[in-house]
Amino acid sequence: MPEDSMDKPYIATCTAPVNIAVIKYWGKRNEELILPINSSLSVTLHQDQLKTTTTVATSRAFLEDRLWLNGKEEDITHPRLQSCLREIRRLARKRRNVGDPDSTDFAGLSHKVHICSVNNFPTAAGLASSAAGFACLVYSLAQVFGVEGELSGIARQGSGSACRSMYGGFVQWIMGNKDDGKDSLAQQVEPETHWPELRILVLVASAERKPIGSTSGMQTSVQTSCLLKHRAESVVPVRMEEMIEAVRRKDFSAFAELTMKDSNQFHATCFDTYPPIFYLNGVSQQVIHLVHRYNRHYGETRVAYSFDAGPNAVIFTLQQYVPEFVRVVQHFFPPDTNGEDFIKGLTVKRATLSEELKQSIGLEPIPKGINYIISTKAGPGPRVVEDPSQHLLSPDGLPKKTV
Amino acid sequence: MPEDSMDKPYIATCTAPVNIAVIKYWGKRNEELILPINSSLSVTLHQDQLKTTTTVATSRAFLEDRLWLNGKEEDITHPRLQSCLREIRRLARKRRNVGDPDSTDFAGLSHKVHICSVNNFPTAAGLASSAAGFACLVYSLAQVFGVEGELSGIARQGSGSACRSMYGGFVQWIMGNKDDGKDSLAQQVEPETHWPELRILVLVASAERKPIGSTSGMQTSVQTSCLLKHRAESVVPVRMEEMIEAVRRKDFSAFAELTMKDSNQFHATCFDTYPPIFYLNGVSQQVIHLVHRYNRHYGETRVAYSFDAGPNAVIFTLQQYVPEFVRVVQHFFPPDTNGEDFIKGLTVKRATLSEELKQSIGLEPIPKGINYIISTKAGPGPRVVEDPSQHLLSPDGLPKKTV
Repeated sequence: MPEDSMDKPYIATCTAPVNIAVIKYWGKRNEELILPINSSLSVTLHQDQLKTTTTVATSRAFLEDRLWLNGKEEDITHPRLQSCLREIRRLARKRRNVGDPDSTDFAGLSHKVHICSVNNFPTAAGLASSAAGFACLVYSLAQVFGVEGELSGIARQGSGSACRSMYGGFVQWIMGNKDDGKDSLAQQVEPETHWPELRILVLVASAERKPIGSTSGMQTSVQTSCLLKHRAESVVPVRMEEMIEAVRRKDFSAFAELTMKDSNQFHATCFDTYPPIFYLNGVSQQVIHLVHRYNRHYGETRVAYSFDAGPNAVIFTLQQYVPEFVRVVQHFFPPDTNGEDFIKGLTVKRATLSEELKQSIGLEPIPKGINYIISTKAGPGPRVVEDPSQHLLSPDGLPKKTV
Repeated sequence: MPEDSMDKPYIATCTAPVNIAVIKYWGKRNEELILPINSSLSVTLHQDQLKTTTTVATSRAFLEDRLWLNGKEEDITHPRLQSCLREIRRLARKRRNVGDPDSTDFAGLSHKVHICSVNNFPTAAGLASSAAGFACLVYSLAQVFGVEGELSGIARQGSGSACRSMYGGFVQWIMGNKDDGKDSLAQQVEPETHWPELRILVLVASAERKPIGSTSGMQTSVQTSCLLKHRAESVVPVRMEEMIEAVRRKDFSAFAELTMKDSNQFHATCFDTYPPIFYLNGVSQQVIHLVHRYNRHYGETRVAYSFDAGPNAVIFTLQQYVPEFVRVVQHFFPPDTNGEDFIKGLTVKRATLSEELKQSIGLEPIPKGINYIISTKAGPGPRVVEDPSQHLLSPDGLPKKTV
């Protein structure tokens, strides 16, 4: 926050990352407070490739709260958005009541807010944009209202997995057990610098139809799947410990196997839901087969997949295996364009594919099954954008033309 | 068995049915004895539509045991086949040792056997032909060697689910808990006459590739899926009681819902297997959606699906709903031929489809996704074919030309 009290941050712009759970969150024990039935663990993706940028402005002159998402004005009365606003204001009020000397540096608590948010990745990528979105919103609101400290509990009330996007690197969301959810918070396990060789590839699949949303999906699962209950109570607690251990030791093969098993178990519980929920399509199944056959070919686990509530695969691997594995993907999902457009993000060196490996995988290629790959790695948590030219809102409180 | 001891049954021909589990068997606690990790319950399909026919002949003149399956000679040393032969001979020996007066009416225990077996349905139909096959083998061997009484424990040692094909109607396979498997037997819950309105449609999907076999699939599941363990120990015992109750009461909606949930849970545990196993393809998923939307349209459960280790759907419904539902299938999986070839088995009346229902289901049709439908119902257990002209082996012990 600016030191100069004359330069009051009634406007703030922040960025926040996407995260991918390797121990999955599926199911709430409290819908309103968004308290999960199990803990989860994720990797925060680097914002150079995937981020949400949000500007929050407040002014005595604003007549109402307003919200723009990716250039389009949206309804701000969404209860979860209102939860975040209310909780940030509550924290700010608390802080001012105890006589914080800085308190007058920040926006009036009764002022209306304008919020403008954009993603640097298409929503069609099927990535959990709500996690980055709510993390960014809460982080930006905190700047404007002068709130510091633990914010993941507020982000959680916007979108469960958003609490994990409040930190960089490897993050656990501890489920907690209090009824008021005060102990259901995210915590960094290791920073993004901990495991520099780890690489992440998002394989954006061409989905035919929009799958069922995760909010209603997990509700139905909690109500109908007996396997989910068992998973949450008996399987995840053990896996959380194993996963934290694997991350700390940078044991890729342990990390990778747990990641795949947990993704599969999550989709298994979707299948055990009544009526069943399918998030994976034929392309996803092919990616799963491909990864297992690739690993089998080398006799070790070099690559892992994870799927959220959609058909896109998130691949975890080590830097040294990226070039060849990308070529494998390109071979078994021949893209329309063979150019550089297929790979976005971190540069991937060219590699050759041996006939032996192709035969060893031996799957029937699915042309255009994957639209493109985003190559990225673990990254930091939310950041304040100091450059005022980057604000998404102009001084009049309306989105800049470029947004 | 023939009354006339002059007409010694050194040759016998029997038929046996296919069965479809509605509470699924998946996983063995003893591979050799084929003892399951949970009980299961199935419906025996009518042999007018689906059956195996087997002729067993023995003769002092035969030089070796031989086996022909669907017209092709096969290796008879398969351990499970040998188990069935050994167990039948053991029972026969026991019977003769206690001085059964009929004992000399039957084949010599040291005689070699010739076995010839055919299915009246294509193996490509993906139906559990091994269940009908081993049931038929054991039943025929019992005829030839003069063994009576409980035979499901022997059929079980050929193929687990074969024990359920030893009875007609609604059959449970009680898992038992003895180490020697003596209490792991099939038992009729209700005969085939109990629920005459029940109808069964086998939707034969066009599979792209052969899925992993059930023997190795279930081995991997037992070794790797923690959800399967929970299912077997905690979920199935309750479901068995509920299913028996639903069958006894002829409560279609309870029967149908349990059937669907159990099929889904079985496939969920396949998914939780490492590496995961997929038996369902896009067509199977479409059938699942279609059934749920059909039921939702009518506000009641009129149709249920069940899938074994393959993409073919087995549909359970009541007689009155068959014509319309078949039309629905035909609409959403437009066949190549619109003729009668699409529906085999029990005659299905013509019906019309309302625009309202089509719209209510609202799925994108998948042309040629289903090859054909076999329309059938619950049927009786194995039968002796009395007409000697029906034997598949000629007096010289070789398959007849027509086989």
